[in-house]
Amino acid sequence: MGSLLLVVSGPSGGGKSTLIRSLLKRRPFHFSVSHTTRAPRPGEKEGREYYFVTKDEFQRMDKAGELLEWEEVHGNFYGTSKAEIQRLMALEEDILLDLDVKGSLHLKRLFPRAVTLFVTPSRLIPLEERLLKRGEEEWKRRMASVKEIMAALPRFDYLIVNDDLADAEQTIYSIVVAESHRAPEGKEGEAFLERFYQQ
Amino acid sequence: MGSLLLVVSGPSGGGKSTLIRSLLKRRPFHFSVSHTTRAPRPGEKEGREYYFVTKDEFQRMDKAGELLEWEEVHGNFYGTSKAEIQRLMALEEDILLDLDVKGSLHLKRLFPRAVTLFVTPSRLIPLEERLLKRGEEEWKRRMASVKEIMAALPRFDYLIVNDDLADAEQTIYSIVVAESHRAPEGKEGEAFLERFYQQ
Repeated sequence: MGSLLLVVSGPSGGGKSTLIRSLLKRRPFHFSVSHTTRAPRPGEKEGREYYFVTKDEFQRMDKAGELLEWEEVHGNFYGTSKAEIQRLMALEEDILLDLDVKGSLHLKRLFPRAVTLFVTPSRLIPLEERLLKRGEEEWKRRMASVKEIMAALPRFDYLIVNDDLADAEQTIYSIVVAESHRAPEGKEGEAFLERFYQQ
Repeated sequence: MGSLLLVVSGPSGGGKSTLIRSLLKRRPFHFSVSHTTRAPRPGEKEGREYYFVTKDEFQRMDKAGELLEWEEVHGNFYGTSKAEIQRLMALEEDILLDLDVKGSLHLKRLFPRAVTLFVTPSRLIPLEERLLKRGEEEWKRRMASVKEIMAALPRFDYLIVNDDLADAEQTIYSIVVAESHRAPEGKEGEAFLERFYQQ
């Protein structure tokens, strides 16, 4: 029934990372490794936490269209390369990606079988509260993009309303189970029918 | 996030009815009632399992274009009336349909938002055993159509392999939960965003 290509997105502070960590405890996924221009921290290993590149190399990758998405955080660049996605897809195992909204929709255009999940609280208020904990300057910057992010919601496959973590965990897990049971097509469908008729 | 239009199909003897009964215990659905010309079995009630009609009445309905789909099985006619589907859809609540493969795919063409489920054991052998319990003549007749039914599998949305009932129950329930979390579009999307920004 094929491997999953799951993409999780949504506004910052919406509890996306917690939800992803929780899902990974219930079910293994290959997780994409991003490129970054920031220096490795002690214990970080090239190709495990990140691919560490120079700003020149990062800009070259961006100009060459090699990046699905990128963002600048505190003067450092972070991005997901198309080559990384292709490396993971070649493994033919389940993949989980944490991308921004533009990156998610970009990926969906490149790979229509990608399953895109939008994670958000049902109301702006708890989102503001969580963002405020990160400091007011950060809050201002992030709130500016919330409207743009939220407007992309109808273009996603699924909406996970993360007001209650246990509920949201159950929902994301149900989506994973459901999407793992897509009817097999092409060669997979033929293989299923072949096994079906075997005595 | 809209009401569900769930369609369950698959080969006879695949445990579809048991699975549907089990799902209905966990979650309420409006269930379409088919018209049939076959005689009621012990315990079956008019308007619950079927609408029991004469062959003349059934043919009148067919000629009048009142049937969404119909099939002849062993000399008996089974059909789902358009009026029944329209009645259910007007309720704007979750609907569960148990249709034959052709009817399922027909419905999917008419209503692309329909979610089609194909239920089958992974191997022909248990299917044969279950069908044999219904008598050898019945078995021969039904086996003749199994190949045609199975060939339609890749055109369905989901495959539920019903080798283990508890597994299959969990899968169908997960699909229902997942499909209940489709990202809202159009007016539903607007309504979600309006609530989101409300102070």
